[in-house]
Amino acid sequence: MESEPSRVMVAVNESTIKGYPHASISSKKAFEWTLRKIVRDNTSGFKLLLLHAQVQDEDGFDDVDSIYASPDDFRHMRERNKAKGLHLLEFFVNKCHEIGVGCEAWIRRGDPTEVICHEVRRVRPDFLVVGSRGLGPFQKVFVGTVSEFCVKHAECPVIVIKRNADESPQDPADD
Amino acid sequence: MESEPSRVMVAVNESTIKGYPHASISSKKAFEWTLRKIVRDNTSGFKLLLLHAQVQDEDGFDDVDSIYASPDDFRHMRERNKAKGLHLLEFFVNKCHEIGVGCEAWIRRGDPTEVICHEVRRVRPDFLVVGSRGLGPFQKVFVGTVSEFCVKHAECPVIVIKRNADESPQDPADD
Repeated sequence: MESEPSRVMVAVNESTIKGYPHASISSKKAFEWTLRKIVRDNTSGFKLLLLHAQVQDEDGFDDVDSIYASPDDFRHMRERNKAKGLHLLEFFVNKCHEIGVGCEAWIRRGDPTEVICHEVRRVRPDFLVVGSRGLGPFQKVFVGTVSEFCVKHAECPVIVIKRNADESPQDPADD
Repeated sequence: MESEPSRVMVAVNESTIKGYPHASISSKKAFEWTLRKIVRDNTSGFKLLLLHAQVQDEDGFDDVDSIYASPDDFRHMRERNKAKGLHLLEFFVNKCHEIGVGCEAWIRRGDPTEVICHEVRRVRPDFLVVGSRGLGPFQKVFVGTVSEFCVKHAECPVIVIKRNADESPQDPADD
């Protein structure tokens, strides 16, 4: 029997509808599935590595009324974004703490697919869990599928947890 | 916490080099990985569903000297093949028994991709584990990849365990 806990990376992101600090439906589902079906009551046997890839291009999208007049304004915006990302991670870390499973959480800026695959190479988890909105082929063209990219390119086993139909908002691209 | 154990389907097949009753390198690896990284010492928390899809087209390929003169000859051949499949499953069931994790094992005839996806729909496991030879794109064209098909089509989460480079025989298509 392995003495070291199994290290499970879970990629988490914010809700596209409610925004920070709310977790997306699919990443919350992937996280809860991992606890319920894999960790179960063997909390000392697992360590969750919670990675939030923060999309750079969307920084400040919800600050449309802001005026950026100096380098400081941008620095403040970045700090606010980082704080939002931390609030997101706090939700998952609190849940781990409640049930008594060890965890580490961190934020990386950039394209989620690249960030996740890069972090897999760097921290070498035993496996990676990613949520998926379960989009049809037509929707995939426009919103991309981080999970499919990870299945192909991440250098560790990957398990994709699809959102249930009854958990989906009216527009399936929302999450 | 779930009171029912997590039901994990593991697809297993015979070695292409050594034949029955030997397990393929990749399905043995997928099975052992599941025990080491997921089940760990929580043996009461999991039940393994061991499915062997027996390829129909290859029946009797190792009986090239046999003469089939009556319907009975074919029946006997099918019985011999079934017995071989059972020997393969025995290896996995014995391992489960040794470590004390519950299991069920069975054989279905047919194309492995169709058989696995059909059995997933029928028995509804919590997730499916499949091994993969980790072939390059050129080799994939000729030997097909059961794991890729399952990731796309199986109606449950799928985790693909790739064979290590150092476990691969000289010809990577062997398993």
